[in-house]
Amino acid sequence: MQAYPRTILRPRHLTRAAFAPFGEVLDAADPGRAPIAINGGTTLRYDQLARVETDDEGYGAISLFQAHEAVSLPLVIEVMERHPLGSQAFMPLTRCRFVIVVAPAASRQPDPANMQAFVTDGRQGVSYRRGTWHLPLTVLDMAHLLVVDRKGPGCNLNEHVFAPGTGPLLLPQEV
Amino acid sequence: MQAYPRTILRPRHLTRAAFAPFGEVLDAADPGRAPIAINGGTTLRYDQLARVETDDEGYGAISLFQAHEAVSLPLVIEVMERHPLGSQAFMPLTRCRFVIVVAPAASRQPDPANMQAFVTDGRQGVSYRRGTWHLPLTVLDMAHLLVVDRKGPGCNLNEHVFAPGTGPLLLPQEV
Repeated sequence: MQAYPRTILRPRHLTRAAFAPFGEVLDAADPGRAPIAINGGTTLRYDQLARVETDDEGYGAISLFQAHEAVSLPLVIEVMERHPLGSQAFMPLTRCRFVIVVAPAASRQPDPANMQAFVTDGRQGVSYRRGTWHLPLTVLDMAHLLVVDRKGPGCNLNEHVFAPGTGPLLLPQEV
Repeated sequence: MQAYPRTILRPRHLTRAAFAPFGEVLDAADPGRAPIAINGGTTLRYDQLARVETDDEGYGAISLFQAHEAVSLPLVIEVMERHPLGSQAFMPLTRCRFVIVVAPAASRQPDPANMQAFVTDGRQGVSYRRGTWHLPLTVLDMAHLLVVDRKGPGCNLNEHVFAPGTGPLLLPQEV
């Protein structure tokens, strides 16, 4: 018995085109990306897949995350966050499918009607553009990930907690 | 028969302390680094292992490298490079031991007498600090790596080619 509106989201496979409004996909397998040969031809460079965005007072930093609790779908989304002063990128260092739920940066709070959901393929990473609302890191496989985000003065975190019963329901991913 | 001086380097295992003059080691296993629990305790954050350095006109960018030619030691070092406008970080996405040869940023050209050599353990990454002389990416295992470096206007690459017969000889790593 459900007496309140609850948006239902089904995650799609992550592609660069679908994710473009929210950020970049970090994936050398993307057919739209031609690499450059460097270092005497010994290395292919897939150049500048994402830009590290910061404000003037901030700077980019590299951190490591150890995600030690995996979830399974379906799940109810309780909270979303965004970083108003910079981008945030996640790249798995071990095989890790993770769940992406995003809403446009322009909105003061994430509107379930404008949300989109994705699941990565285990190798892919993403960079959320500055201000993009996103689900905090939520993994289907425990993993280590490299994180590149903005450090410096000021508040770089906004959180939105959904009122009880209103958080979107995230179904298992499409096959 | 060797009629010229050739410096001989033996790579050491990479540690944060030994590498500190040249940059940062990206390694969650470093015992000197206490992580922070975030995301409701589901994630450990090893915070800010490296800073993404840029000049005022530049910005950080995330790229992927595919290193498709592995070397074996010993080898002669023919060329070193540095990036005067920003840092450059390498993080393997698949198991990859790579060779690090560095010389201080302050020197106009890399002096073999001041060089140090390391080999990573297959999981470790590094960030070369702005201006640090380093061997171009040289891997013992073919791999994909994530690279974070500086983009923007201006020349961010200096190369030094050793005169014939003067390039340091890099021996196999210590056991």
